[in-house]
Amino acid sequence: MSGSAPGEQGNARAIGVFDSGLGGLTVVHELRRCLPRESIVYLGDTARVPYGTRSAATVVRYARGCARLLVQRNIKALVIACNTASAVALDILQAELDLPVIGVVGPGARAAVTAADQAEREQGRPVRIGVMGTLSTIRSGAYAREVARLSSRHEVHSQAAPLLVPLVEEGWLEGDVPRLAIERYLSTLLKPDVGVLVLGCTHYPLLKSMIAEVALRLLGRPIRVVDSAEATASAVHELLEQRAWHTPNPEAALQLLVTDLPDSFQASATRFLGDVVGSAQAVDIMPADG
Amino acid sequence: MSGSAPGEQGNARAIGVFDSGLGGLTVVHELRRCLPRESIVYLGDTARVPYGTRSAATVVRYARGCARLLVQRNIKALVIACNTASAVALDILQAELDLPVIGVVGPGARAAVTAADQAEREQGRPVRIGVMGTLSTIRSGAYAREVARLSSRHEVHSQAAPLLVPLVEEGWLEGDVPRLAIERYLSTLLKPDVGVLVLGCTHYPLLKSMIAEVALRLLGRPIRVVDSAEATASAVHELLEQRAWHTPNPEAALQLLVTDLPDSFQASATRFLGDVVGSAQAVDIMPADG
Repeated sequence: MSGSAPGEQGNARAIGVFDSGLGGLTVVHELRRCLPRESIVYLGDTARVPYGTRSAATVVRYARGCARLLVQRNIKALVIACNTASAVALDILQAELDLPVIGVVGPGARAAVTAADQAEREQGRPVRIGVMGTLSTIRSGAYAREVARLSSRHEVHSQAAPLLVPLVEEGWLEGDVPRLAIERYLSTLLKPDVGVLVLGCTHYPLLKSMIAEVALRLLGRPIRVVDSAEATASAVHELLEQRAWHTPNPEAALQLLVTDLPDSFQASATRFLGDVVGSAQAVDIMPADG
Repeated sequence: MSGSAPGEQGNARAIGVFDSGLGGLTVVHELRRCLPRESIVYLGDTARVPYGTRSAATVVRYARGCARLLVQRNIKALVIACNTASAVALDILQAELDLPVIGVVGPGARAAVTAADQAEREQGRPVRIGVMGTLSTIRSGAYAREVARLSSRHEVHSQAAPLLVPLVEEGWLEGDVPRLAIERYLSTLLKPDVGVLVLGCTHYPLLKSMIAEVALRLLGRPIRVVDSAEATASAVHELLEQRAWHTPNPEAALQLLVTDLPDSFQASATRFLGDVVGSAQAVDIMPADG
């Protein structure tokens, strides 16, 4: 993580957050809970969502375009609120940008290891970590790598669960269809020794209680569910503390930018943010990142 | 539909086909069945799929980029094998391009009216037409408009069914999850007088038998299911007949171009084409169309 000090008045600059679409607003929800006096500028690349089914090369190209647009808005730190982009583009953006860049995978993996350590102490036997995410996130192996870097105690099982994103986008959060889809994914993922489940996609928190309920039924005992949105907000909080970059900004604002503004924007954004959203501004990503 | 004659040797030129992703290969499957001696160059805009959830303005921009790339490949006719792009961009591309442009909505609507006329004669009572499609296709009202242009006898009921695309992409073509999702959509769409159901999305033919089965159970009688891929291939056949543009080409080939080449390409393309696919070439859409 690089980055020069933003200086006295730089503290009032906004935190930049981007995601492939609107799912990253679950991270904004946690950031606002944790840092209510910070301004946030959010970019949802709704013209090219989803990233999770695309090749790594294309995701890197798209992530660069999003980051560049936010940097031009004079942000003090950048949050990649997208597991797929964090998994494949975090290192690159950290190397290329002259400001702190935080992804969701690192904080999510740290929270998972902490939860697994605790479960292991309580249960007195090894505890594995299960990770659900998009195809690209799971294929990248980013969570397994990050967990291994932090601890050699916990093995990681992974399962791509691509259908959960469109289910959330469609607003089908209850009923048989999401429950059976979750059951189908979890019945592959959950072995008896999996004690912690990481929601490795910013869409999944909206299905959190149903995922916990299905896991309880399949395993016959409760499981710890780690939401990387919460963990990421804590990591940003820590960063601002360390650098004394907190802003006692009485006019903290949330600005929403999107690359495509569909009719369903308000309903969808409100669902992810857990709060009524105002209007969003449509922006173009620089052509070179097509 | 405009277009200058391609001249003697122009007959051997390929038919250009584009779709937001790989679903349009269901149209290519029908084209090859119907016109086995024609060369086809197919462009799947896999870096920006799906179009069905985006605004009309963005879909028009993307469709222009795809069309321009194919025109540069010296095609004799252009098929928009995507219901969403056909619904919102057909008129624009027909006006802008100097070659025949065929979409899937017109042929699909014609086939639906023919089927509804026949059902009405057999049943001796009015028959309505049901249309399932993506959000953008249904919002555009393109099928209802096209049916109204052809006949005043048949009312159109429409239902967006966005989840069926990711279900097909995930390869979940059997079992409870797709069946319950189809049931949820059809129970809203199907009224007692709906006698013809149009599959207004190139992904849906892979769920055709399950859709027919659920409709039978809900209505207590069979329903005519119209697949716009078949209807579109017939329309292209007719066009080539009219213009005497048929190619007795012993080396008819299928060339596949994609804007993103994910690991899952082979499996997915093979599923839609109903035949083993060779390799695909990754191409960039001109930056200005971002």
